[in-house]
Amino acid sequence: MLEQTIAAIRPLDTEAMAAARALHARLTKPAGSLGALEELSVRLAGLAGACPPPLPEPAAVAVFAGDHGVYAQGVTPWPQEVTAQMVANILAGGAVVNAFARQVGASVTVVDVGVAVAVDGPADGLVAANVRRGTRDMTVAAALTRDEAIAALEVGIRVAGDLVGAGARALLTGDMGIANTTPAAALIAAFTGAGAAAATGRGTGVDDETYARKVTVVTSALHRAFSREIPDPVEVLAEVGGLEHAALAGYILGAAAHRVPVILDGVSAVAAALVAARLAPDCTGAMVAGHRSAEPGATLALRELGLDPLVDLGMRLGEGTGAALALPIVAGAVRVLHEVATFDSAGVSEK
Amino acid sequence: MLEQTIAAIRPLDTEAMAAARALHARLTKPAGSLGALEELSVRLAGLAGACPPPLPEPAAVAVFAGDHGVYAQGVTPWPQEVTAQMVANILAGGAVVNAFARQVGASVTVVDVGVAVAVDGPADGLVAANVRRGTRDMTVAAALTRDEAIAALEVGIRVAGDLVGAGARALLTGDMGIANTTPAAALIAAFTGAGAAAATGRGTGVDDETYARKVTVVTSALHRAFSREIPDPVEVLAEVGGLEHAALAGYILGAAAHRVPVILDGVSAVAAALVAARLAPDCTGAMVAGHRSAEPGATLALRELGLDPLVDLGMRLGEGTGAALALPIVAGAVRVLHEVATFDSAGVSEK
Repeated sequence: MLEQTIAAIRPLDTEAMAAARALHARLTKPAGSLGALEELSVRLAGLAGACPPPLPEPAAVAVFAGDHGVYAQGVTPWPQEVTAQMVANILAGGAVVNAFARQVGASVTVVDVGVAVAVDGPADGLVAANVRRGTRDMTVAAALTRDEAIAALEVGIRVAGDLVGAGARALLTGDMGIANTTPAAALIAAFTGAGAAAATGRGTGVDDETYARKVTVVTSALHRAFSREIPDPVEVLAEVGGLEHAALAGYILGAAAHRVPVILDGVSAVAAALVAARLAPDCTGAMVAGHRSAEPGATLALRELGLDPLVDLGMRLGEGTGAALALPIVAGAVRVLHEVATFDSAGVSEK
Repeated sequence: MLEQTIAAIRPLDTEAMAAARALHARLTKPAGSLGALEELSVRLAGLAGACPPPLPEPAAVAVFAGDHGVYAQGVTPWPQEVTAQMVANILAGGAVVNAFARQVGASVTVVDVGVAVAVDGPADGLVAANVRRGTRDMTVAAALTRDEAIAALEVGIRVAGDLVGAGARALLTGDMGIANTTPAAALIAAFTGAGAAAATGRGTGVDDETYARKVTVVTSALHRAFSREIPDPVEVLAEVGGLEHAALAGYILGAAAHRVPVILDGVSAVAAALVAARLAPDCTGAMVAGHRSAEPGATLALRELGLDPLVDLGMRLGEGTGAALALPIVAGAVRVLHEVATFDSAGVSEK
């Protein structure tokens, strides 16, 4: 399934992009006055192979949840049980991602791809796809076997396909996993060549001592995994990734294969996007950077991916919250190509 | 009416703000993880005097339209008739602000406060409140008399009152006026002390020659108007402002008096906000900076007002487009206080 998905990913359609640029020039607004939104809408035309491209509605957030063996190294002050508790909270509609999704009219699906304990909560909206009950501690062993990594990738591909099959025209990434900014930092360091300290942030708010430990943990995991050779993307993912990162990478690939935009949330999403981009470089055409997470690794990854975020408000919550806030901006950019009058049709003089 | 409105503007309610901060600490998310949205929601609680504050829905965009005598100085390549043509386009629903307003569920009202010619277009959604058919050329005389400036301020106050009376719980600023970035630059230079070159931008895309002329025009208007003394805010407005800037200032004051948030669009809105803030310093509590316009003067004005914009995408269109894109972010910030579960209620462990 992974290979088929990668093979289905195509470059952007340059004819549709040219048509979108030409349409922009005729719309009743000064050329270029919509700033970054113009090129975004052009790119989405290229992705869809149509001008105008479809509105990104309905939109679906998939929150991939997993736990992390590296939790044992003391990289976060939160109890590990919070992953499952927050999964239940999201299923009950009580998390910030639910509030934001209601605001912007997106659905929320939770995918248990690697939670350490059985998930307790309403089954409605839950996809039970646990590959294993949390990763191994990446400082002492590969976090996942290659097969486990591929299984989690394929969970994400399947979720993307199911959501698109159910009508979604935009996929938003979400994640929940106590300690998951640690593997995200390791993935970003591995794929960008940045040092562990540069790629590692304070996640949900760790103190100086825990932060120093987190950098040490990332450093030692990278040393353990990559002192021999530069492995392939799936191997990097298996060595230092998380199950939700693997599933997110698959989800991104799935969106790209279906030619549906995928709005990336924070540091876990962009870490996964690096995996996806190495597996299928053309999938970056489907990526929209929803926001710039306060995590420093997110900025490194966005730069590597060549993406500029739509929202930059110092958020560092995850769950898909930053992607949700960006959705109306993406929809607005596309809607312009559908609904704005041309100089001719509106009888407006040109300069 | 202006004096009564100014007198009605009160400081933010510190008790409601404290309640909002305390509520944030109990919600199921890491402290501070919503970045700038947390303080925004706290401020809106202070504005409403209630925690949670009302959702900013329904929301209304008022697009204040006017023409400018300084057009004669060759500060823009667009024909002046485009102001009235674009008013008709907005009334017909064909402008970018209409597409964005539909996206975010806001109404659009157009206010003719100073268009040079009779407005042609559907009367539905048009407020006919023309104070005069365009300003005088500010390089040779005061753009407005003091009475005209006050009349236009009161148009804005009245529009704000009418929209709030009709149920609006957020007011968004919009503007349309060929050449209106020139008086906006002059207002910003006058209120911030910045030089004309620093405050003046390329508006809807002027070439180098026109830009140089625009800076000269702003410089000479400032020299004509203010070489004698520092006048009061209404006098500054009358000397170098536009009718839409005056109405926007009144609209902002009206929103603050009604304790309803006002989401500022671009450079014309923030220029008007400087006038409003000088007339009633507490009105800044009602202001939300929707976006950072690409116009350099906008950044100067935002700094003077102490506001950080929510969206920063290089847009320079006006009409209310940047304010509209920010609305779902503002609504999301407030919605968190209404809908997110607490650690206790959701059974989520704290760190």
